[in-house]
Amino acid sequence: MRVGILGAGNVGGALGRVWTRKGHEVIFGVPDAQSERTRKAIAALGGAGRAGTNAEAGAFGEVLVLSVPWPAARQAIESSGNLEGKVLIDCTNPLAADLKGLTVGLNTSAGELVSEWARGARVVKAFNTIGAGNFGRTDFGGLVADGFYCGDDAAAKALAKGLIADAGFNPVDVGPLRNARWLEPLAMLWIDLAINQGWGINHAFKLLRR
Amino acid sequence: MRVGILGAGNVGGALGRVWTRKGHEVIFGVPDAQSERTRKAIAALGGAGRAGTNAEAGAFGEVLVLSVPWPAARQAIESSGNLEGKVLIDCTNPLAADLKGLTVGLNTSAGELVSEWARGARVVKAFNTIGAGNFGRTDFGGLVADGFYCGDDAAAKALAKGLIADAGFNPVDVGPLRNARWLEPLAMLWIDLAINQGWGINHAFKLLRR
Repeated sequence: MRVGILGAGNVGGALGRVWTRKGHEVIFGVPDAQSERTRKAIAALGGAGRAGTNAEAGAFGEVLVLSVPWPAARQAIESSGNLEGKVLIDCTNPLAADLKGLTVGLNTSAGELVSEWARGARVVKAFNTIGAGNFGRTDFGGLVADGFYCGDDAAAKALAKGLIADAGFNPVDVGPLRNARWLEPLAMLWIDLAINQGWGINHAFKLLRR
Repeated sequence: MRVGILGAGNVGGALGRVWTRKGHEVIFGVPDAQSERTRKAIAALGGAGRAGTNAEAGAFGEVLVLSVPWPAARQAIESSGNLEGKVLIDCTNPLAADLKGLTVGLNTSAGELVSEWARGARVVKAFNTIGAGNFGRTDFGGLVADGFYCGDDAAAKALAKGLIADAGFNPVDVGPLRNARWLEPLAMLWIDLAINQGWGINHAFKLLRR
């Protein structure tokens, strides 16, 4: 699959790495294709990807992935061309600068705002509830970490589900896009444990069923 | 241990049942000790508990448990006597009437409001992230569901941890009381899956570690 990834940082870089290993092709949309961060992200792709503008990433991708810091999200979307009908996977979390809280939530979510901004796109929230250091590295003592996702378009979710599995996660559909209101606080809990409680990155949520 | 439980409904009744089986003694604080709901809750305790006023439950309990619906929480606390130094386990979720959202969150939480209202009490948030039908019934295909809790007082948390284990859960300390901001949305995700996505009650969150 051709995937445009807006952002070549922690999250976008890790997604590019795990997906190109599965045979997908990637273009990172970045402000500066020559930055050290972007060059490192490209080098990790083994020739299966390159960097371009957001518009190039948008035009290239059958799927577009939003993996920039939250304050840059709207501008990234608005510089990615016509998104009508496009599947957009939103990985963002609206983190406060001190990493102790969210700036958006309760009666809306980053996922829902992204859907407003990306007019006509079919948004799926995913890859936001666990640190990117775990992408492609999802075994926890014989148990596979879950990759939670939500969205309102069944076909877009089916496509996202495949990409979640390709990153090593057990995909778990948690319903409509508005449930990003609960996935983003779940991310905040993961992040708080990682950073503020000093756990590091070796933890993951799983939804048990019987 | 002597436990006062404010509310003898779904959550309080289930806690009374599992704890009295473990040898704890219970007084339910209820508005009407003769109501059918309360009589059923008492009957399930095998003689190890009774009903009284909130003030009686408060005076009786080495631990006090708040398990009334959120709109009744403040009044329940304020009718429970002097809570100075008391360990108060808050099981509430600030659910919207349509069960599709929370009425409190983002920059505060029910747990933090409870702590304000229960002046001097040592509040631990617990038992809010999974339906009460799973209390004492925590095996999910050989994996034990987690019982997440948070609070600011180490001794109160140690005591809550024991009661969480006595309800069959694997206790997981997720930090300070302010992290109720993330446990309450986690509860909302559990509830949304149960009710709005039609999953029923046979799911549970677990935090994997390696």
